[in-house]
Amino acid sequence: MRILVLGADGYLGWPTALHLSRRGHDVGVVDNFCRRGYDLEMGVDSLVPIAQLQQRVRTWEEVSGLRLETYVGDLTDHVFVQRIITEFGPEAVVHFAEQRSAPYSMIDRAHCVYTQVNNVVGTLNLLYAIAEHDRSIHLVKLGTMGEYGTPNIDIEEGFIEVTHKGRTDLLPYPKQPGSYYHLSKVHDSHNIAFACRIWGLRSTDLNQGVVYGQETDETTMHPDLATRFDYDAVFGTVLNRFCVQAVVGHPLTVYGKGGQTRGMLDIRDTLACVELALLHPAAEGEFRVFNQFTESFSVRQMADMVADAYPGELRIDHVEDPRVEKEEHYYRAAHTKLLDLGLVPHLLEPATIRSLLAVVDHHRHRVDLAAINPTVQWRTTASAVRAPIGGKAPA
Amino acid sequence: MRILVLGADGYLGWPTALHLSRRGHDVGVVDNFCRRGYDLEMGVDSLVPIAQLQQRVRTWEEVSGLRLETYVGDLTDHVFVQRIITEFGPEAVVHFAEQRSAPYSMIDRAHCVYTQVNNVVGTLNLLYAIAEHDRSIHLVKLGTMGEYGTPNIDIEEGFIEVTHKGRTDLLPYPKQPGSYYHLSKVHDSHNIAFACRIWGLRSTDLNQGVVYGQETDETTMHPDLATRFDYDAVFGTVLNRFCVQAVVGHPLTVYGKGGQTRGMLDIRDTLACVELALLHPAAEGEFRVFNQFTESFSVRQMADMVADAYPGELRIDHVEDPRVEKEEHYYRAAHTKLLDLGLVPHLLEPATIRSLLAVVDHHRHRVDLAAINPTVQWRTTASAVRAPIGGKAPA
Repeated sequence: MRILVLGADGYLGWPTALHLSRRGHDVGVVDNFCRRGYDLEMGVDSLVPIAQLQQRVRTWEEVSGLRLETYVGDLTDHVFVQRIITEFGPEAVVHFAEQRSAPYSMIDRAHCVYTQVNNVVGTLNLLYAIAEHDRSIHLVKLGTMGEYGTPNIDIEEGFIEVTHKGRTDLLPYPKQPGSYYHLSKVHDSHNIAFACRIWGLRSTDLNQGVVYGQETDETTMHPDLATRFDYDAVFGTVLNRFCVQAVVGHPLTVYGKGGQTRGMLDIRDTLACVELALLHPAAEGEFRVFNQFTESFSVRQMADMVADAYPGELRIDHVEDPRVEKEEHYYRAAHTKLLDLGLVPHLLEPATIRSLLAVVDHHRHRVDLAAINPTVQWRTTASAVRAPIGGKAPA
Repeated sequence: MRILVLGADGYLGWPTALHLSRRGHDVGVVDNFCRRGYDLEMGVDSLVPIAQLQQRVRTWEEVSGLRLETYVGDLTDHVFVQRIITEFGPEAVVHFAEQRSAPYSMIDRAHCVYTQVNNVVGTLNLLYAIAEHDRSIHLVKLGTMGEYGTPNIDIEEGFIEVTHKGRTDLLPYPKQPGSYYHLSKVHDSHNIAFACRIWGLRSTDLNQGVVYGQETDETTMHPDLATRFDYDAVFGTVLNRFCVQAVVGHPLTVYGKGGQTRGMLDIRDTLACVELALLHPAAEGEFRVFNQFTESFSVRQMADMVADAYPGELRIDHVEDPRVEKEEHYYRAAHTKLLDLGLVPHLLEPATIRSLLAVVDHHRHRVDLAAINPTVQWRTTASAVRAPIGGKAPA
């Protein structure tokens, strides 16, 4: 299958491209390197060093004998989007190419507007390019479980049957996202569903949980093939942060009560899920939603799991929650559609956490503890991401 | 009450500003004249001649003795938005300032992206400016009944209680909008609800039906105070189009079967509803939704009503529907919240249609029949709005 991976220089885009390439697909990779730009803006870096995209692609060709056609450009540039769709001629497009951090979108007005315009316009350009060039192209789009928020009823996969005043309809699941970033994904979902309806496009919206892990079968084949490991307060996710805090002897910082519960999955399951969606495409005109996670944990549970897996002593601190979110809530979300297609999950076991701790330990000299402090406050309209140059890091 | 009306040069913004001014409020008016720009782009014009904003404001002062503070600028310019909020210091903002035509948003990629960016970014800038300057400002935002689409269950006012697998929650009503324009309003609604939640803002989302009528108590006080009357296929609404077709002896053109049913209201009720919302503001942190319409009619019913009210003979033609929409469907939508606040509706009576027909007849020499033909097709990705200059109008 000819597959174009958008955002292929990122944390998940890169290992997904390698995985699909090794599985025998013709893979094209696309990126504009904005993710590396965010690091420069904030003065942080991936804990694990990563090679430049062109080097990664060369090394992959040396290691595997497989070529990745490479395009550098921005999805908000519609001429570029038209070009990659017509030149590469994909049967499917995997779309990771969005600003994906909730705190980044909440820094201030400029970052909020950037996130929504970048994500929404990039996806609109893609929908138009597909509709104009080849409506049979299957769009596999990365959404997030965060689109749903934390309703007090079970979360279903994209749609819910509602019976109301004696009548019944299957409706889009109501969305209550928790940041301007999550909102951008909700906007995308509405736009894509509409494009499928009017143009007969086929799309799968992967409402993904929080991904953990850094190593896949392909990224471990050569140091140049490693993917990012983010632990900073803006792009790092909670399990990564806890592992870094454990290794450097800092208390694990749980935001608020820690009852915030989220769907999670292993990075290797992300790759498997994306390929399952590709091998079983949506029908013509179909907009379908898969909830892409394997287990749910509360933040407090994750802290306890890291404490249990870590060989030394650990303290768990509760700090004030910088976000506006329910710190204790009902959470039960369906996730059977990918299992039905054959997903065999890697569950979060002590061994998984220990392998993450080993990755961190190997690079512990690169840890910048100041980058872990949450500085982006949901309740204010403008936050400083880092202390001014030469200044003290925020407390 | 100090009220800033955004989009105050438009069809509804202008009469709303006059109405609020005459009712004793301190009114500021804001516009960037993009609406007049769309006319220039498409080579069409309001059937009723309209004066420039500065002239309208001068005439209003002469006629009424009341001043309208006037600001010219664009809501996507956040410095401008900050300035009007801080300089004018409103207690409430009425936000009409969005691109409001579904066909315009469906012309092509550029118009789709323009509509979503213009509407979403303008509203985000406004939310930030309010949150930074004065969180007690009540934002009265014009949404549309089209956000809901045509579900097979009753439409409620913004929220619906869902019982699912033995649990119950009050959730945002699921949205199935029918154009990139309607989608932009859905995006706005999600963004505003979130801003109310995290910043404690107060907002009323007026999900308005299709407005008809052209004269209000204030606009008829002087010809300079007249508001627009649009009948073209892109900005005109269906009742206006039927009245123009009737007067010039053209068959009334019903799209498809004509069973498309929509909530409607008289322009005078728009003014009353906006003032009711202002006089009874949302609470701190509250995002509330009023369905702002008074009656529902199908397109076919409206054609029949115009045919009945028109003194001469009329033919009703069914033409191919350029949109992707259900041509026959269930439609029952709640609209009690504004009635509970005291709205006394003007219903659509033969006399109302006859007064519209009289407005059209007075300006019949200005009718451009070619502008009525629908040229924007939902199923294609690019439509020509008008025939090339010097060419033949589309059939």
